[in-house]
Amino acid sequence: MRSSTAPLTPVEVLELSVRGEPVGAASVAALVRAWLDGVATDAQMGAWCAAACAQGLGAGATEALTKALVASGDRLELATLGPTGDTHSTGGVGDSTTLAAAPIAAALGVRIAKASGRGLGHTGGTVDRLEAIPGYQVDLPLDRFVRQVRDVGIAVIGAGARLAPADARLHVLRDETGTVRSAGLIAASIMSKKIAGGAGAIALDVKVGDGAFFASVEEARGAATAMAALARPWGRRVVWTISSMEQPLGRRVGNALEVREAGEVLRGEGPPDLRELAVRVAADVAEATGVIAPGEGEARAAAAVSDGTALAVAERWVEAQEGDPAVWSDDGALPAAPERRVVGAPGGGWVSRLAARRVGETARWLGAGRLHRHQTVDPVAGLELLAKVGDRVEPGDPLAVVHARDPALAGRGAELFLHAVELADAPPEPIPLIIDRGGDDA
Amino acid sequence: MRSSTAPLTPVEVLELSVRGEPVGAASVAALVRAWLDGVATDAQMGAWCAAACAQGLGAGATEALTKALVASGDRLELATLGPTGDTHSTGGVGDSTTLAAAPIAAALGVRIAKASGRGLGHTGGTVDRLEAIPGYQVDLPLDRFVRQVRDVGIAVIGAGARLAPADARLHVLRDETGTVRSAGLIAASIMSKKIAGGAGAIALDVKVGDGAFFASVEEARGAATAMAALARPWGRRVVWTISSMEQPLGRRVGNALEVREAGEVLRGEGPPDLRELAVRVAADVAEATGVIAPGEGEARAAAAVSDGTALAVAERWVEAQEGDPAVWSDDGALPAAPERRVVGAPGGGWVSRLAARRVGETARWLGAGRLHRHQTVDPVAGLELLAKVGDRVEPGDPLAVVHARDPALAGRGAELFLHAVELADAPPEPIPLIIDRGGDDA
Repeated sequence: MRSSTAPLTPVEVLELSVRGEPVGAASVAALVRAWLDGVATDAQMGAWCAAACAQGLGAGATEALTKALVASGDRLELATLGPTGDTHSTGGVGDSTTLAAAPIAAALGVRIAKASGRGLGHTGGTVDRLEAIPGYQVDLPLDRFVRQVRDVGIAVIGAGARLAPADARLHVLRDETGTVRSAGLIAASIMSKKIAGGAGAIALDVKVGDGAFFASVEEARGAATAMAALARPWGRRVVWTISSMEQPLGRRVGNALEVREAGEVLRGEGPPDLRELAVRVAADVAEATGVIAPGEGEARAAAAVSDGTALAVAERWVEAQEGDPAVWSDDGALPAAPERRVVGAPGGGWVSRLAARRVGETARWLGAGRLHRHQTVDPVAGLELLAKVGDRVEPGDPLAVVHARDPALAGRGAELFLHAVELADAPPEPIPLIIDRGGDDA
Repeated sequence: MRSSTAPLTPVEVLELSVRGEPVGAASVAALVRAWLDGVATDAQMGAWCAAACAQGLGAGATEALTKALVASGDRLELATLGPTGDTHSTGGVGDSTTLAAAPIAAALGVRIAKASGRGLGHTGGTVDRLEAIPGYQVDLPLDRFVRQVRDVGIAVIGAGARLAPADARLHVLRDETGTVRSAGLIAASIMSKKIAGGAGAIALDVKVGDGAFFASVEEARGAATAMAALARPWGRRVVWTISSMEQPLGRRVGNALEVREAGEVLRGEGPPDLRELAVRVAADVAEATGVIAPGEGEARAAAAVSDGTALAVAERWVEAQEGDPAVWSDDGALPAAPERRVVGAPGGGWVSRLAARRVGETARWLGAGRLHRHQTVDPVAGLELLAKVGDRVEPGDPLAVVHARDPALAGRGAELFLHAVELADAPPEPIPLIIDRGGDDA
């Protein structure tokens, strides 16, 4: 009902979007701006996100959303600092990769400038994990953030305050409206923060499978290439890995528990899957920035772990953000749950399934994530997984330890956890961790 | 993540609904109650409505929503008043049928107890039309409403205050979020008001075609039978008509303009399509209550118009609600637009299309409906249609008169209106008005 160039009103955009009919980029941009200005309502934006989930979001709409989110705040230009890098996971369960990969890459000479988000749906978020570190400041003024990137070589903050602040608002709204699982919304959210954050090279870890927001490898690859395309006009280089989220990564799920596990990786210990992926992501970002020659990243990253330089960088990083640097090495420096409940195997056999989504939902239910907007995340809540897919257990063998605020939560958490587990009479096929890789050449 | 009997949380309901996966009736009821209690947010309910539009709403969810809406307020029992009836249109453009049909049915001895809604999307609403009548009170206390039904034989109020008040809130939210066109949401909205309003027989006019919320006859029939099924457990009888909304009904679109046109019908004048449908709906409700024998309704309704009894009832009705009873006969009693702009035919030929939705959107844009929640409806805004489908026009012949608040609006309205019109070199196929009928036997 408007001339072809004028943007549609929010209601017109919504009427088309819920039916899956395309709307122009200008109209999407106008809707997002109207929402940020308080003209369009949360109900309208929530409905739009639901339409995006149900009907998909086209490339033009995704790009328009990304631009609108970037334009909502400051945009850093870090080129004068030398090779800068950033890492990002699309969200998984027990996925503390970033906490280890970022300081490893920094130890290799990449300046890590990272703006992170909070947990979404059943998955954890880097900001929630960092807030489990006593004293750690996630909200730094941007000038201090840039100084820390320059002087310490690594800084990780919450993206909310100044960088793509609209994305932080949109995160909250998507979490509240159950509209997290949309490839377009995920790509726009991630890339708006990455673009505003200013790093020159971005390593993406795109999760696929039961506990991921992407169900198929095709979907994940589509999102990865979409994100690379969103970054290109801004002169950023994207490299990506597609990795499995059929079962949780590592052996710990929950904010403080995952900080502890990242510390193990930085000390050369920890579960092999988490170690492998952290080294891979660190190598990717180091190679993409050009500080490490192609093909040499993995060996150099492994060396930075074994010679202790990555751990030392991690300690300087946390200290610079006023956190307790002992968290990486001293279990006593992290908050711990008052209640721990061992969950025994209901029968014997091989663990054939440890459904990542149900484990994540159990952790969320225990308090590690949010079921509604104003919920506070409990840093100590979560699960330790004592058996993973392929392990053999006897009846009653410990499968997991539930970490909870009180005995009632622990008991219910143990019940919920068991729904995630399947046992079989024969060993299952192994689940490959890294499924595909790609991205822009250095 | 809950035991099978406990309702899901709002976020869990949304995560399933945006993907088109079914949720139990108890969970839908819990979401609606949570929204009414202020626990679930407008954003969550808006997202749920968007999911309902995009993915459809199952029979169980529709019934649960209807029950929750009815339970949100008072529910009248009018059995002691004798045969009571109600009429409803699913929403069209230029559709003042109810304003004429209701007093005609009352003249036949049906006590009309009607609770109406406001305009939705590009369609008008009975409450908005009634508010164009100077002095008319749409918000009566329920005891006064019931007394008026008993003493005057007809009362029409806004459903908002006490009857299914949740539906009034949901109307506003759906209008705001562009989620009006969902068969399930429409059925639940209509039937919650009908059930709470207490009338024993309900005549539904289900619109189909370009300007209707239903695109196909199958969809309309599905909605009609769904609404009849929703009413049956409450002991109400539903009869339904499916009528065309390819072009606007009658010749006037806009609130005061439609009151004027209903007055013409009550005086035995007015456009034949509106007259035919008003008589049909009045006959349906009279036969369904049993006050008129099957098959005799149409002749008796036509007689009530020609002998002036329907007009007399309409005047007593408006007077009882403090409105000016002269509105039905005296054009000067209604507010009129300061600006009128004649739209000339851009060429010659037969009018082959007069797209109801574009006409309705033009009227909405002029102020006859709402583009956002807090907009006030302008009673004088709208269009007079001087040529309808099948009429022959020469270049420059008047096609319509735009009624607007100022010259700028009138000019833009005239431009927008022309997008609704198509001319052809040969006469088009006539559009049948009444397409199907059905319902519960009396």
